[in-house]
Amino acid sequence: MNERDIIECLNSQNVAGKPGLLYGIGDDCAVIEKDTDRSWLVSMDTLIETVHFDLRWHPAEKLGRKAVAVNVSDIAAMGGTPLFIFLSLGLPKAFDPSWVHGFSEGIAGACREYGCLLVGGDTVHSPEGVMITVTVIGDVPVGEVIYRNGALPGDIIWVSGELGLAAAGLEICKSDIVYDTASMRAIVEAHLNPQPRVRLGRMLAKSGLVHAMMDLSDGLATDLSHLCKQSGVGAVIGSEKLPTSPDLFDTASLLRQNPFDLMLKGGEDYELVFVTATDAAPKIKALSEKAGVSVTKIGTIVEKQGVSLILPDSASKKQKEVNISFAGFDHFPSK
Amino acid sequence: MNERDIIECLNSQNVAGKPGLLYGIGDDCAVIEKDTDRSWLVSMDTLIETVHFDLRWHPAEKLGRKAVAVNVSDIAAMGGTPLFIFLSLGLPKAFDPSWVHGFSEGIAGACREYGCLLVGGDTVHSPEGVMITVTVIGDVPVGEVIYRNGALPGDIIWVSGELGLAAAGLEICKSDIVYDTASMRAIVEAHLNPQPRVRLGRMLAKSGLVHAMMDLSDGLATDLSHLCKQSGVGAVIGSEKLPTSPDLFDTASLLRQNPFDLMLKGGEDYELVFVTATDAAPKIKALSEKAGVSVTKIGTIVEKQGVSLILPDSASKKQKEVNISFAGFDHFPSK
Repeated sequence: MNERDIIECLNSQNVAGKPGLLYGIGDDCAVIEKDTDRSWLVSMDTLIETVHFDLRWHPAEKLGRKAVAVNVSDIAAMGGTPLFIFLSLGLPKAFDPSWVHGFSEGIAGACREYGCLLVGGDTVHSPEGVMITVTVIGDVPVGEVIYRNGALPGDIIWVSGELGLAAAGLEICKSDIVYDTASMRAIVEAHLNPQPRVRLGRMLAKSGLVHAMMDLSDGLATDLSHLCKQSGVGAVIGSEKLPTSPDLFDTASLLRQNPFDLMLKGGEDYELVFVTATDAAPKIKALSEKAGVSVTKIGTIVEKQGVSLILPDSASKKQKEVNISFAGFDHFPSK
Repeated sequence: MNERDIIECLNSQNVAGKPGLLYGIGDDCAVIEKDTDRSWLVSMDTLIETVHFDLRWHPAEKLGRKAVAVNVSDIAAMGGTPLFIFLSLGLPKAFDPSWVHGFSEGIAGACREYGCLLVGGDTVHSPEGVMITVTVIGDVPVGEVIYRNGALPGDIIWVSGELGLAAAGLEICKSDIVYDTASMRAIVEAHLNPQPRVRLGRMLAKSGLVHAMMDLSDGLATDLSHLCKQSGVGAVIGSEKLPTSPDLFDTASLLRQNPFDLMLKGGEDYELVFVTATDAAPKIKALSEKAGVSVTKIGTIVEKQGVSLILPDSASKKQKEVNISFAGFDHFPSK
């Protein structure tokens, strides 16, 4: 029974719908009718010590920020504005009050930055390590919600920012490498303190140009596969088009990791992947400049199901196409 | 640093408020503006294996029901109707799929019973045991939200149902007692499968007669102390007026427990405690009959802060008054 089976089992006994529910399980957020002008977006994410974070290298304040950020990113992914946060915090019997102070500062700092407010939750004893569950409520004008299921063949696929840095940062933390350069500290920071694209997501939704969008939490290969599956289409992306920092290649080399694994399978980038018609490109570029966040064309939506990666083949000097649907941990090509 | 300190620390950095927020931290739910007619109520509760439940005696289906029930009870406590549920489920690596099926049936069954729907959440690996966090969203007509802070000196204090059964049920489960009688099974059921008072809560809120209300999750002594503190008043309750099942006394005797400890400090009753003017009594009684849930007058709101219990004193043949504010685990009188 994998994660998908568990979700299907939980969902299987659900009745068909409910007045006021615009969209339930299956996108970044549930969408609920608010009034004639606006809809609510609601999402919930859990971070568990040893599974999602390691307190040996994750400072309390940055963990507080990240707990808010990963939830706010789901609101950004549907084009909304975060408003209210609920926090359930599980702490072991022996906890350090100064840790709670730092964590609270992180929660409050991220809330201020993204314009939301902590308004409720729960505190409990945890038998083993810290557990953090956040529920976020955001809103969005009716008609501006961007779902995952609207991609059309011929659409351009875009991603914001740079890929693979968070995954490389985690690998640095797990290694014995001393990260004393500015570039390596920036890569570690991408893991410790991700920046959800709230402003860009809102501007994209408002533009009316985006057919489908989601945030990158599980890695581009898996997340783009979800978007394609829900849209009933496929995608072809180019390995040479994937945006990242030049420092990623040096770091990957130091870590003896494949940089494309980090970019495609790494996860936790909290960037946006979205699709538009080809003629929207100039407006998207202008909007990206206004938001102060780079966006890059990485490929095209196609009719044929699945997500393919185009790689240069040094042996044949031609290109080769590899299926990377749903991360393809077993099938993923080594460099 | 106790639970209250943690909450204060988390809340201390919060800005004062936010448009759309009617009430934040400090009541059973946060209250958020929906439209001109209705408000949202939102609450979040976590249940953790070994802290809140024990799978040796808690069947999966009843645990699923209870995870919904304890959240829905917070909506009932403010007079609302539950609508949507979000579930974060943490499972250890080795879990039994049939357990997930049973748990899902419990979630779905309780949702059907209380008229709400599971619409989102998260599934994660847990390093140690099952972890369940539920967020519930309900709604209530504007002007019918019942807060904790409206109690007035002279008001009657009421509780619904019977007290102490859930605590006695837990003690039976923890003991070696074989519970083979109908009455003991009913007491154990009160622990495994509590029944939040959604219909009664809604009818009380609609009546306009209730000055303050909350649900009983931490035990009457603590919960009534919260209600009094937030209302700036005190309470005097009579030990002989506390409603319970005659079976509680037999069970308490078998368990070598003080039945008043179970009724006042036990917790998890998920009954409602509420206060009204004295002249509202006949209407409250009629409404209770219509809802099919008993309600009992247990005391009076007074100006003097603190919660006092009136006990018969067999030695002096007079009554004695004991302060039981906030459970008073250290100060609580033995029988």
